[in-house]
Amino acid sequence: MASFPPLKNDLILRTARGETTDRTPVWMMRQAGRYLPEYRAVREEHSFFEVVETPELAAEVTIQPVERLPVDAAILFCDIMVVPEAMGLTVKMVSGQGPTFPQPLTTPEEMERLVEPDVDAALGHVFEALAVTRTELNGRVPLIGFAGAPWTLMAYMVEGGGSKSYRAARRWLYRHPEASKALLQRTTDVIVEYLIGQVEAGAQMLQVFDSWAGLHSPDTFCTFCLPYLEEIAARVKNAHPDVPLVVFAKGVHHALEALADTDYDIISLDWTMAPDTARDAVADRAVLQGNLDPCALYAPPEVLRREVHHMLAGFGPHQHIANLGHGMLPDHDPEHARVFVEAVHEHSEHMRTV
Amino acid sequence: MASFPPLKNDLILRTARGETTDRTPVWMMRQAGRYLPEYRAVREEHSFFEVVETPELAAEVTIQPVERLPVDAAILFCDIMVVPEAMGLTVKMVSGQGPTFPQPLTTPEEMERLVEPDVDAALGHVFEALAVTRTELNGRVPLIGFAGAPWTLMAYMVEGGGSKSYRAARRWLYRHPEASKALLQRTTDVIVEYLIGQVEAGAQMLQVFDSWAGLHSPDTFCTFCLPYLEEIAARVKNAHPDVPLVVFAKGVHHALEALADTDYDIISLDWTMAPDTARDAVADRAVLQGNLDPCALYAPPEVLRREVHHMLAGFGPHQHIANLGHGMLPDHDPEHARVFVEAVHEHSEHMRTV
Repeated sequence: MASFPPLKNDLILRTARGETTDRTPVWMMRQAGRYLPEYRAVREEHSFFEVVETPELAAEVTIQPVERLPVDAAILFCDIMVVPEAMGLTVKMVSGQGPTFPQPLTTPEEMERLVEPDVDAALGHVFEALAVTRTELNGRVPLIGFAGAPWTLMAYMVEGGGSKSYRAARRWLYRHPEASKALLQRTTDVIVEYLIGQVEAGAQMLQVFDSWAGLHSPDTFCTFCLPYLEEIAARVKNAHPDVPLVVFAKGVHHALEALADTDYDIISLDWTMAPDTARDAVADRAVLQGNLDPCALYAPPEVLRREVHHMLAGFGPHQHIANLGHGMLPDHDPEHARVFVEAVHEHSEHMRTV
Repeated sequence: MASFPPLKNDLILRTARGETTDRTPVWMMRQAGRYLPEYRAVREEHSFFEVVETPELAAEVTIQPVERLPVDAAILFCDIMVVPEAMGLTVKMVSGQGPTFPQPLTTPEEMERLVEPDVDAALGHVFEALAVTRTELNGRVPLIGFAGAPWTLMAYMVEGGGSKSYRAARRWLYRHPEASKALLQRTTDVIVEYLIGQVEAGAQMLQVFDSWAGLHSPDTFCTFCLPYLEEIAARVKNAHPDVPLVVFAKGVHHALEALADTDYDIISLDWTMAPDTARDAVADRAVLQGNLDPCALYAPPEVLRREVHHMLAGFGPHQHIANLGHGMLPDHDPEHARVFVEAVHEHSEHMRTV
């Protein structure tokens, strides 16, 4: 591994390891993005995938929120679709629709179009972006890498793009369960190699996004999501036991105990989960991350501060990484992001003194 | 109230009252709709809202699934948007997008455009459709009426149509909480009068659909959903204590106990809820309805039957109305709907003998 500048703020890593700290670390999902004018300025010159594929640009937008806000982590600006792309599918970013596959996997036979990628070649730009970003961060905060979870990637690969119900993908599970498992396993193998490569390139913490896990019944979750999430954590931990792993299985209210039994150190919660219910389910088996309703950032600052205090009180002062329950939204006011971050700092310090 | 033919199958009403029965009643949300060729034939001649607004056509498509399948209830073919329409907003059905408001309520000031409707005049076509349907059903099965819940209607009224995150509507809650409550209260008042009118027109059971309740945090649910759901049940029960009331608050995994404390007799569950978890939360305070994953109807018949048996075992033989966890989908095979209904009949009888 390359040598990087020493870390000046390791708060999130200490919390991830279960240590008690002087305050609660905080970052925001999608903290690099359209709500920032400096990001929009970059995007006026470069397309979304140009930014993702150009390490200097990816580093620039990754660091933008760190320059502006006192967050305790950076998360690489990238997209979960780089994995399906590396597996041979074409992905286009369609304005207003998000990532779109012009030729989705409509039948299991079409899996023949998938390739076993040379991860270093196909995703080298991500590894390079991590190395450049880590160097340019200069130890200010740890750098988080990430990947989409197998089911969430399958949902897009089969459906062809964003959808309300992902019923084409969910139809596969019931009609083609064995082909679904084969697709999920192939995707898992790439994700594992990709995440291990991210650590070797400079990532200091990793998050797996299962954004569409909430579309499952408890049974289909246990068949088509959980085993692959488990396998990813076990294999990445085997390679890099000290790198904290986060799982964000959005909407999976019914399986927090099962997630706590995996090798993930941190369970990220969406905003529909009550902190005390989650803590009861997980006990001390995982650090919890989250989970302010992203729409609370639309509130006036005094209301937003009250919401942050309420959230922090729900999680308590330890084993908690403050975050939103989902990503920042394009019309959020960056000054409200500041209120969120500063309120976590101030109130979480205060909580430790009373 | 008008006099109607005597009821030959009151299974669902007896189950709703908590009585033990010889088998589990079954119907399907959106059982009248696009998956039926006979429905598509009607829609080739008439637009969606023409069918809704013409009592004979609404009755015809309501009864189609009862003619074809041995379901234990009919649910009036109608749309939740008739209430916002009665309140003065224009609703258009846009192909592929669903109901759309060309002029949504973008600010609280625009609530001035809303009217206090004369419910009998504005929604008389629904009452007439119920009366015609009840007569034509000729007592074969009970007739269910329904309305959208205040929050779900507000979500559409503010957002202007279907949306992934309903962030415009959710922004209102944080920016304009008092105006939001005023809008929810005005909608509640219309819904109460509408539901009471439905009973007087012939509805024998009522369901309130809070399809977007799952977008709430536990706190915003308690502020902006639950009080209005409670009020609707209390006021309708006050007028018609014997008519069973169902609430379907999709995605509200965190508030089953609170829903059990309301005047709803039946809590309808989406497919992400484990039956045993729901029963533990609700105890004997409500009948449960649901909750097969609608995508299970894509499975081959033998797999589908196994899924139905598994679901029935989860709920047990009593205090349960079998249904899907969400509506039928347009590309479902009607013969798989038959497998679902017949599997409930057969297996639920079998469960009572062992």
